[in-house]
Amino acid sequence: MPGNSFGQFFKITTFGESHGEALGVVIDGMPAGIVIHLEDLKKELKRRAPGQHSVHTSRKEEDLPEVLSGVFENKTLGTPIAVIVRNTNQRSEDYSQLKDNYRPGHADKTTALKYGFRDHRGGGRASARETLARVIGGYFAGLIIPDVSTYAYIQQVGPFQLKVHPENHNVDRGEINIPDEAMTKDVVSFLNDCKAKGESAGGIVAVSIKNCPAGLGEPVFDKIKADLAKAMLSLPACCGFSLGEGFSFAHLLGSEISTNSSHFGGIEGGITNGEDIHFQLVFKAPSTIGDKAKSGRHDPCVLPRVIPIVEAMTKIVMADHFLRQSAYDSFLP
Amino acid sequence: MPGNSFGQFFKITTFGESHGEALGVVIDGMPAGIVIHLEDLKKELKRRAPGQHSVHTSRKEEDLPEVLSGVFENKTLGTPIAVIVRNTNQRSEDYSQLKDNYRPGHADKTTALKYGFRDHRGGGRASARETLARVIGGYFAGLIIPDVSTYAYIQQVGPFQLKVHPENHNVDRGEINIPDEAMTKDVVSFLNDCKAKGESAGGIVAVSIKNCPAGLGEPVFDKIKADLAKAMLSLPACCGFSLGEGFSFAHLLGSEISTNSSHFGGIEGGITNGEDIHFQLVFKAPSTIGDKAKSGRHDPCVLPRVIPIVEAMTKIVMADHFLRQSAYDSFLP
Amino acid sequence: MPGNSFGQFFKITTFGESHGEALGVVIDGMPAGIVIHLEDLKKELKRRAPGQHSVHTSRKEEDLPEVLSGVFENKTLGTPIAVIVRNTNQRSEDYSQLKDNYRPGHADKTTALKYGFRDHRGGGRASARETLARVIGGYFAGLIIPDVSTYAYIQQVGPFQLKVHPENHNVDRGEINIPDEAMTKDVVSFLNDCKAKGESAGGIVAVSIKNCPAGLGEPVFDKIKADLAKAMLSLPACCGFSLGEGFSFAHLLGSEISTNSSHFGGIEGGITNGEDIHFQLVFKAPSTIGDKAKSGRHDPCVLPRVIPIVEAMTKIVMADHFLRQSAYDSFLP
Amino acid sequence: MPGNSFGQFFKITTFGESHGEALGVVIDGMPAGIVIHLEDLKKELKRRAPGQHSVHTSRKEEDLPEVLSGVFENKTLGTPIAVIVRNTNQRSEDYSQLKDNYRPGHADKTTALKYGFRDHRGGGRASARETLARVIGGYFAGLIIPDVSTYAYIQQVGPFQLKVHPENHNVDRGEINIPDEAMTKDVVSFLNDCKAKGESAGGIVAVSIKNCPAGLGEPVFDKIKADLAKAMLSLPACCGFSLGEGFSFAHLLGSEISTNSSHFGGIEGGITNGEDIHFQLVFKAPSTIGDKAKSGRHDPCVLPRVIPIVEAMTKIVMADHFLRQSAYDSFLP
Repeated sequence: MPGNSFGQFFKITTFGESHGEALGVVIDGMPAGIVIHLEDLKKELKRRAPGQHSVHTSRKEEDLPEVLSGVFENKTLGTPIAVIVRNTNQRSEDYSQLKDNYRPGHADKTTALKYGFRDHRGGGRASARETLARVIGGYFAGLIIPDVSTYAYIQQVGPFQLKVHPENHNVDRGEINIPDEAMTKDVVSFLNDCKAKGESAGGIVAVSIKNCPAGLGEPVFDKIKADLAKAMLSLPACCGFSLGEGFSFAHLLGSEISTNSSHFGGIEGGITNGEDIHFQLVFKAPSTIGDKAKSGRHDPCVLPRVIPIVEAMTKIVMADHFLRQSAYDSFLP
Repeated sequence: MPGNSFGQFFKITTFGESHGEALGVVIDGMPAGIVIHLEDLKKELKRRAPGQHSVHTSRKEEDLPEVLSGVFENKTLGTPIAVIVRNTNQRSEDYSQLKDNYRPGHADKTTALKYGFRDHRGGGRASARETLARVIGGYFAGLIIPDVSTYAYIQQVGPFQLKVHPENHNVDRGEINIPDEAMTKDVVSFLNDCKAKGESAGGIVAVSIKNCPAGLGEPVFDKIKADLAKAMLSLPACCGFSLGEGFSFAHLLGSEISTNSSHFGGIEGGITNGEDIHFQLVFKAPSTIGDKAKSGRHDPCVLPRVIPIVEAMTKIVMADHFLRQSAYDSFLP
Repeated sequence: MPGNSFGQFFKITTFGESHGEALGVVIDGMPAGIVIHLEDLKKELKRRAPGQHSVHTSRKEEDLPEVLSGVFENKTLGTPIAVIVRNTNQRSEDYSQLKDNYRPGHADKTTALKYGFRDHRGGGRASARETLARVIGGYFAGLIIPDVSTYAYIQQVGPFQLKVHPENHNVDRGEINIPDEAMTKDVVSFLNDCKAKGESAGGIVAVSIKNCPAGLGEPVFDKIKADLAKAMLSLPACCGFSLGEGFSFAHLLGSEISTNSSHFGGIEGGITNGEDIHFQLVFKAPSTIGDKAKSGRHDPCVLPRVIPIVEAMTKIVMADHFLRQSAYDSFLP
Repeated sequence: MPGNSFGQFFKITTFGESHGEALGVVIDGMPAGIVIHLEDLKKELKRRAPGQHSVHTSRKEEDLPEVLSGVFENKTLGTPIAVIVRNTNQRSEDYSQLKDNYRPGHADKTTALKYGFRDHRGGGRASARETLARVIGGYFAGLIIPDVSTYAYIQQVGPFQLKVHPENHNVDRGEINIPDEAMTKDVVSFLNDCKAKGESAGGIVAVSIKNCPAGLGEPVFDKIKADLAKAMLSLPACCGFSLGEGFSFAHLLGSEISTNSSHFGGIEGGITNGEDIHFQLVFKAPSTIGDKAKSGRHDPCVLPRVIPIVEAMTKIVMADHFLRQSAYDSFLP
């Protein structure tokens, strides 16, 4: 059942359940001699942290990262970097009634079927809390490809859709990662309403990558689009990935797309072509609804907080493929 | 640049360029003692073969599989199974004018950027011809999970959409893998028209899996949805994957989906729940259009021939995860 | 530079430098529902701990394991098990004079050449301290194959050789893991003498495995002898591995060995045959000698403390191959 | 049961049974644009071929390599290189009496135990014939590291030992890979005698690598010594690997080895130090003895023909680690 590692050269292995002692990540394959800034890492974790906005769960988690290895005098050693975050917010409530109570749309039942035993106090590894280890991995990945810029944002929440996509990565994404003030207002109001009613909502995230070198991606199975898709579909609640024009490709004719490579989302033949990369993700509405959701200790929508996680997974894929391609640099003519 | 292997336990490694000597696959991890039927394998290859319908490329390829190893007296040995298919249809034409001519929307340019050297006579590994190795792999994967039924079909081509999804896997998919006679007629006529004009079209494929055991999929990165997404996005022209309600999840509220697990496409928490699995794929229109396309030696649309390939990749993912989970069977209570 | 994971199904990923915050291991692929005993794990770590005998380094390390994940109510969850051990014994001495001082026979110089940057305060990942993570991994591996008995012992230290090999695994290995009282006395006296003089010694370890199922080992590269050899040669100071009659095979004729499978060490064709497995390892004398060694903070010989580490690596290999073979159990006739 | 791939970046996957259609290898991770010389590859295969000397098996195999993919206009494409060799020398004899006849010291019994089904006509994957795929892989590996010189030779056969080790790689290894004329004579006569009697012999191979860059090898599990050990122990009949002073380290004191790095065989801390690399291997006597051996269709000793195979595996390990380290080159100060 090993399935907790991702990447070939920049490789993360994550661990930790939502109600266990700690969560963490081991990063293997980090180049040596790279300066790290713990404050930047904390900032990334804070972008993901709950309890910071009315549309988040009210649960607070401090998420203090502790670097256990791989760094000396603020520089990476080339050895594995282990970072942990203690769980501090488990409430000492009585969980026993949850033991045989499988929540629909959660991993409760499938976890029980797969393992025959589970930690019934919470989502375990299926909890969104797991993703903080990915954010830590993403911070380090970003240091390998400092010139590559990754920018994710909310394109849709429930009935609200973004009309104009931002052209550059400086555009302010506001309080909940929507690069549009009016839509932000609408969505905040909509989600606060959802929260009050015990309702939940899904949506679409768009991702843009600028300044990515050409030539990344390994035919035929480790195409960059394939590894990005796997990275994203490994996120809780993510139910779809699409590249470039996405599902609109279904009705676009060859003559409408083949004159101009911009439709292909920066990837041709599964390999980056040096242009901007564009892809989209869909996330379903959280399954916790009704009275339980009204407690406020659940997100009515994962999208506001998923943005830094999506950016982290993107960087992990790109850093990994950057190193994979670098191994062959000296053979290029 | 190794990227030509897929799977952990049921592992295929493919090779071969469109204009080289041969293409093939090595299957490592096949259980021993399983009876094979070469005729069934040939049938699968024939489902993928071009030149069989007016909407296909007119190029004919015989695609005779030759089993080089791993089988003795029609039974698998548990050793690697190597199967090759010779290329017999390369025309001895003059390819020199293609040398520095990068076709838009193809892998020509990115291949040159990545490797610094390429076989300019054709698509090389980016050619759809590569996928026959996957069909061979899929045949053997299917023998591992004989009770799991995989059924893919065309849901949309250009402007034409399927109105009713087939409920079971016996529904006839007609001459071009559309389980609806009227739509088949429309699409055949539309694609013949495209072919005549040098136009091309995209579309959507739907996949249904029945009788899949619960418990397959490995949190947190090798979730079954993540591995299916990778498998599918590794296919040429595939630009999107979605599970269950797919991109419709964007506007569906929690209350609309969480009462009934059928919306989740048979996968919860990244693990199969024992219900039917449903996912969709989008394929873009082929980039070869205009005068070159009018030669008839190109498919105006990949969907009619992609169905057996999609089924093959599905079986490969499921067989691999079936073996992965089987390793732990004896520890289940 | 990722190289800190070992195993396919029972997979450990280790981290931590000798002078960093902590060392640890993530175990991925542990079956669920297995009862663990923290006291047994501590006992294993204690077998490896320094400072417990006059022939050890006088350095004391408490080595308290902290389980961060993967265990709930004393049972494994099937999720990754992370265990860390804090470093508590780094002395706040001035290490600056070691910065450009490469100790001969250590990894100092090669680490600098490879990474361009290193933690000069100690051996980093090349320190024997790294091996405690393997002992933790070995404890959990042992729980997967409880019936397989692994027994390692000292066969030679410097000029002293064991005359009679123990026939079973109950034989007491005395204070420094030599199953012979007289030889123990000789070696203790010899090593104390070495320590006083700033001298060091090497030796040979023998390993016996009883009750191992037949059929483990994967041709042609993951033969069980190949994976055991890799596991052992990955240990600091280990310079050789040999199976069965080992280097004596050089002069043994076919007629002397082929009538009786006992010579082959329990492995034929790279696969376990169900008989007892026997192999040997050679370890070189520690490179720290002379005045520096006289401080007492270095082992004059690694063998007394290496025994539990060798057993741990053995169990990790066997548990991994046990799970690999188990995936195919249901296909056996 | 997948176990037929070796290497991370320069990765070979081999297939083929001794009595099947063909054997072969797929090489994934080859850099593009490298000129290949088919004649050089054939020369390497010929060095391994049987039937060329009186001390070989009299079985003749032509071993014509056919390159199926990955090469265009005599240059590598960066795509997988598949090379096959047909089996042409299987005799159409009646093998049925071998069906339940497990030859002692062979893989017959363990193969049956592991897989429950086997090709009883010969050794299958356990046959030494499998190694020709490795020789092909080694040829391509050598092209990646053209400046690294690998030189293996026989150090001992039965009672005969080499007295002086060759200092450089130009020393002629004579007709059976012994760099000493007198010893060659003795061993030829000894092995011819063995052959006549149906006897067999083992021996030791020494390997020297010159001009290897420093910094290769990945702590802590993929140390270069660990991967070399695995590579060698994966060879049929190989029963031991030792580095530098090898098993003599058992009695060498620290003061005898630590003043001079030459004892360590070119590897410190598991990483190459830029000096010459030295290691040794022991091979057991073939298990086919007696009347069956007298037929002449079996080698009385594997060592004369194992030399090119050992060199091939050495190059595969070094090329793989060269690429692994190259990925990080741009980060070195």
